[in-house]
Amino acid sequence: MRLSVHFMPAGVQAADLAGRPVIVVDLLRATSTIVAALANGARAVVPAVATDEAIRIAQNLERDGVLLAGERGGERISGFALGNSPGEMTPETVGGKIVVMSTTNGTPAIRAAEGGTPVLIGAATNFAATVARTRAVLGEDGDLAILCAGRERGFALEDAYAAGRFAQALIPVGARRRVALNDAAIAALELIKRYGDKWKRAVAASTAARELIAKGFKEDVVAVTECDRYDVVPVYADRQITLQASRA
Amino acid sequence: MRLSVHFMPAGVQAADLAGRPVIVVDLLRATSTIVAALANGARAVVPAVATDEAIRIAQNLERDGVLLAGERGGERISGFALGNSPGEMTPETVGGKIVVMSTTNGTPAIRAAEGGTPVLIGAATNFAATVARTRAVLGEDGDLAILCAGRERGFALEDAYAAGRFAQALIPVGARRRVALNDAAIAALELIKRYGDKWKRAVAASTAARELIAKGFKEDVVAVTECDRYDVVPVYADRQITLQASRA
Repeated sequence: MRLSVHFMPAGVQAADLAGRPVIVVDLLRATSTIVAALANGARAVVPAVATDEAIRIAQNLERDGVLLAGERGGERISGFALGNSPGEMTPETVGGKIVVMSTTNGTPAIRAAEGGTPVLIGAATNFAATVARTRAVLGEDGDLAILCAGRERGFALEDAYAAGRFAQALIPVGARRRVALNDAAIAALELIKRYGDKWKRAVAASTAARELIAKGFKEDVVAVTECDRYDVVPVYADRQITLQASRA
Repeated sequence: MRLSVHFMPAGVQAADLAGRPVIVVDLLRATSTIVAALANGARAVVPAVATDEAIRIAQNLERDGVLLAGERGGERISGFALGNSPGEMTPETVGGKIVVMSTTNGTPAIRAAEGGTPVLIGAATNFAATVARTRAVLGEDGDLAILCAGRERGFALEDAYAAGRFAQALIPVGARRRVALNDAAIAALELIKRYGDKWKRAVAASTAARELIAKGFKEDVVAVTECDRYDVVPVYADRQITLQASRA
């Protein structure tokens, strides 16, 4: 088994991900928000990189069925219906809708994972389901990549911790020495020694959490640590994220 | 005190480094090789990004006084006098010479650090000297950055460990809670729990070490772990690295 963690999309080559299962992680907040949206009945989430790309995609969809969502600098993009908070993705708001979404780090990371087979959207809120699904697609001699969104092209502690948690759960017990880990996977696993299985502690220690709390998003920082709240695994394929292929 | 670690130059903005002391680390092998070159009598090392830039710089210097050095894929650049091995930088070879050097990750990282004041070249081989010099320039309320070269735009375990060692040595005893650490600094410090003060263990666990050993550079992998072999601190300023400003 090979297990590679990438702390940020910058520098990741298509060949690093092509043909293997990829888990994309952006705990604060994009993948947590996408999990909430689909668990609460959204038909699909379409990840866009730029704001104007999101608007263009939305214009090509039926007006009543689409919602624009996303943030820049943490705040809802001006004119968009939704920001990037898991709590906004209620059944009343997103049920039956397509959510076109653009965030600073998360949606570009998902797009960068395009070559993965499959590309799974991971968070603490769907941790066990994502682990189970990944195991099912990985096989004995599997080759797994975990792609962290990071922050503004830098290292994000909460994503690295999440990568470590996924890695730990997916390495068969007692088999670590037989798994080819890349350097980032070694460092990600090490973070578990600091924070144990405490999502809250790891998230609270991150710069992103501090910044979001300062901007009034404390609720989000709590919501993203609700481990296994949802039993869904969003899958990104053909430019949209859905539960269609999900059997979790 | 603020202490920021950057695991790779990609994504680092000029503002992240401008005006503050920066330690650049590329243990395998550029900063280790530069320390050896200057400790063994080279007049200066001039870091170039591209191969043809190195050749152009060399052509503008007096022919007898200049040596081209560098690697691509770990191997000496075709036609260059030297590769990127600390062991090549003997007094007989580099004494009195200007070494124009281009490596895959190290010399671009040094160039990316340009805005730092000062920019110090750090390695295990000049660890104590670099710590002492950094302390001298940092001051009480200092703001320090440690820039890892990383590998091919990705995370490098040996550089992250080195960053953790520098961070640990520079945080006043008992004062960690009063130091503003960025996310990468927290993760770098965590690696010390795994490898302790054993440079050899941390370096041996890295992908770069395995690749270099496979290419026949085992001696280099050993040489870069010789802690405090040299009592010099190379400083990068005005496009060249020298010991001129060094008082260590």
